[in-house]
Amino acid sequence: MNAKKIVGEKAVDFIQDGMIVGLGTGSTVYYSLLKLGRQLEAGLSIQGIPTSVQTKELAEKLRIPLIGFEDVNEIDLTIDGADEVDRNLNLIKGGGGALVREKIIAKASKRFIVVADPSKMVNTLGAFPLPVEVVPFGAQLTEKHIKKLNGEPRLRQSNGTPYLTDNGNYIFDCTFLDITKPFELEIALNSIPGVVDNGLFNGMADVVITVDNGEPIFLDRKR
Amino acid sequence: MNAKKIVGEKAVDFIQDGMIVGLGTGSTVYYSLLKLGRQLEAGLSIQGIPTSVQTKELAEKLRIPLIGFEDVNEIDLTIDGADEVDRNLNLIKGGGGALVREKIIAKASKRFIVVADPSKMVNTLGAFPLPVEVVPFGAQLTEKHIKKLNGEPRLRQSNGTPYLTDNGNYIFDCTFLDITKPFELEIALNSIPGVVDNGLFNGMADVVITVDNGEPIFLDRKR
Repeated sequence: MNAKKIVGEKAVDFIQDGMIVGLGTGSTVYYSLLKLGRQLEAGLSIQGIPTSVQTKELAEKLRIPLIGFEDVNEIDLTIDGADEVDRNLNLIKGGGGALVREKIIAKASKRFIVVADPSKMVNTLGAFPLPVEVVPFGAQLTEKHIKKLNGEPRLRQSNGTPYLTDNGNYIFDCTFLDITKPFELEIALNSIPGVVDNGLFNGMADVVITVDNGEPIFLDRKR
Repeated sequence: MNAKKIVGEKAVDFIQDGMIVGLGTGSTVYYSLLKLGRQLEAGLSIQGIPTSVQTKELAEKLRIPLIGFEDVNEIDLTIDGADEVDRNLNLIKGGGGALVREKIIAKASKRFIVVADPSKMVNTLGAFPLPVEVVPFGAQLTEKHIKKLNGEPRLRQSNGTPYLTDNGNYIFDCTFLDITKPFELEIALNSIPGVVDNGLFNGMADVVITVDNGEPIFLDRKR
């Protein structure tokens, strides 16, 4: 069985009857959604909040009941993927471009479960370019300030023009040599005027599910 | 002579021939612009970058040559007002709603000159509600996180609907009992997912010009 399927399905064990569940996006969460759909057919009752249009469409196909994010004060549990996970369970997310929305939903969740096949597990973050969302006004200056933090920003493109997020902003995909101090970098980036947020999810994951020798394993955040 | 006129005109002394000058907005900067217009007629040569449509229109009327923000890498000097100035020259700005743009321009400026009549000078920031710009998605949750920092947010309205910034975002005007640690509050606010930026301009003003006994005085930032 492939690793994505193993961890994606395992995450569904955390879902309990009656929960409000944040539904992430990506090729691993895909398997969580399929399994959740089967459990709903078998009698489980939950309400889901999708983090993307893609997940919304799949959830509707699977007859997962959905509610609007604006209708809840708190989410019981969110299952989502990551682009990289380090040894302290800090993450890089946002390769798909929805980092601000994903971060808002993760922060609103009582428990945040991350599904990550072994290729995502790293000692130090930074091989995956860190997405940084910025307002278009003055973006060339914001880029300069990111460079001062030793980042190498590349403006994300879509069909030859700058990619726009759901919030109408740009994304710089930033290569840092090594992200050895993710908490400091997150603050430094968010303190630049013009930066909306960045793809570092530090200290947010409660549990990371990955695979070792074909078996799912759970990594719990030290508190 | 009124205090706004005294400090507004005095700020123009900092402008030198050939400079690229950031032109702020408001009832005090108004007098800076009028005087600058007279100096240009007398032979001074500068290029201006307006921070607002209002300033752009006044500058055009006064025949101040303007260039686009996207055409410069650095601004020699910016003159702007503030809603509050504390003893350490930290500021609250953004009452007019353009805090992100103003902060980007202030940060891009080699010198940032603030004009403030005595009514703006306070011991501790916070009597003026601090504007916080947030993305509309999940704004009710972002509001909750601001409350956890002991702020009392009020969604800014315009004709019965939420006010929208130039960046398409909302503004919460937040009353904090006392802003005794402005640097910590600025980081805490900008670390909330969904917050784009806030109106605290800490450690950015190089000189504040105000009035004492009818005479302009200069407050220099301790470094």
